[in-house]
Amino acid sequence: MTVTAVTRIGCMTRWQPNARGRLRQAALELYGEHGFDQTTVAQIAERADLTERTFYRHFADKREVVFSGEVHGVLVSALAEAPASMTAIEAVTVALDAAGAVLDGRRDMTRRRQAVIAANPALRQHEQIKYATLADDLADALHGRGVEPSPARLAAEAGVAVFRTAFERWIDQDEQRHFGSLVRDTLEELAAVINGS
Amino acid sequence: MTVTAVTRIGCMTRWQPNARGRLRQAALELYGEHGFDQTTVAQIAERADLTERTFYRHFADKREVVFSGEVHGVLVSALAEAPASMTAIEAVTVALDAAGAVLDGRRDMTRRRQAVIAANPALRQHEQIKYATLADDLADALHGRGVEPSPARLAAEAGVAVFRTAFERWIDQDEQRHFGSLVRDTLEELAAVINGS
Repeated sequence: MTVTAVTRIGCMTRWQPNARGRLRQAALELYGEHGFDQTTVAQIAERADLTERTFYRHFADKREVVFSGEVHGVLVSALAEAPASMTAIEAVTVALDAAGAVLDGRRDMTRRRQAVIAANPALRQHEQIKYATLADDLADALHGRGVEPSPARLAAEAGVAVFRTAFERWIDQDEQRHFGSLVRDTLEELAAVINGS
Repeated sequence: MTVTAVTRIGCMTRWQPNARGRLRQAALELYGEHGFDQTTVAQIAERADLTERTFYRHFADKREVVFSGEVHGVLVSALAEAPASMTAIEAVTVALDAAGAVLDGRRDMTRRRQAVIAANPALRQHEQIKYATLADDLADALHGRGVEPSPARLAAEAGVAVFRTAFERWIDQDEQRHFGSLVRDTLEELAAVINGS
């Protein structure tokens, strides 16, 4: 039996291939069409042709669809696992590249997600808090690599600043370059700024 | 009739020298003793020997006592007014020094304030949002000095990272050095991190 055939029967048997991805796609569409506050979980489930119960198996609430934290997880684990011989900033660069590999595979969806955040002040505030948590987690991961607390904190903050600056360029509709390429440009720019040019 | 005379008559005996400072002092004491959530504006006014009405002339609510934004204002205006010949990072350093002059004059109060924030998750979240707003405002001020958007954003984020790292050392009870001296050490450390040491 092919996957497609199983999908067709799926409504009956409830086996739902990629339910998480379908729910996210449906949610981002609805948030974009009607606004985040105006969208209900019932509407998301209906659009995805799934039940509310399935929604809550994948996400705690409708905000978690926007902030599911996969890129965050990739950044932190890639940083922790980078070769021990690397300096702090080299390990941060490896982590940013790993995040880039994920992001480049979902560029259109990420653009839609960012438009939803930009349109909602509460989501924008939540995004700031998420970035602060990311900086804390990266600093902890660097400290776990043996970096002293203060340079760990600075390298983590620098990493988040580079991530955000590269990301802002990357989501632009006219920008075609990969995330990793924009990270390299941004790192060079940061070095130039810090070194006083 | 002078403004001072009008003020004195305006409230009968209610002319209160340094009402704002007394309210802040009373609020931080009470937040420290009983917790932020458990303290009422009525209690703050009573401890300061002032009325609730006077409180609301100085602060929108009890959270604003904690986040009154004076250091934020000093950072942004010092950055905007730094000599035009300075590079972005030089102007950011001037701004951090100006903030340091304010902070060094109220070190004990700032330590009490920080303990209140540390004890309350909602205040900690609000602090993150305030730092994000500060980075935005510093980036705007740098852009106003003719710095391109992307280096302006990076220099602003670097400035906030240096501020926070220096601040964390500065509020330590065992730390005696002035804020400006810790800023210099932190800037050097950031340059070493970015340049890959």
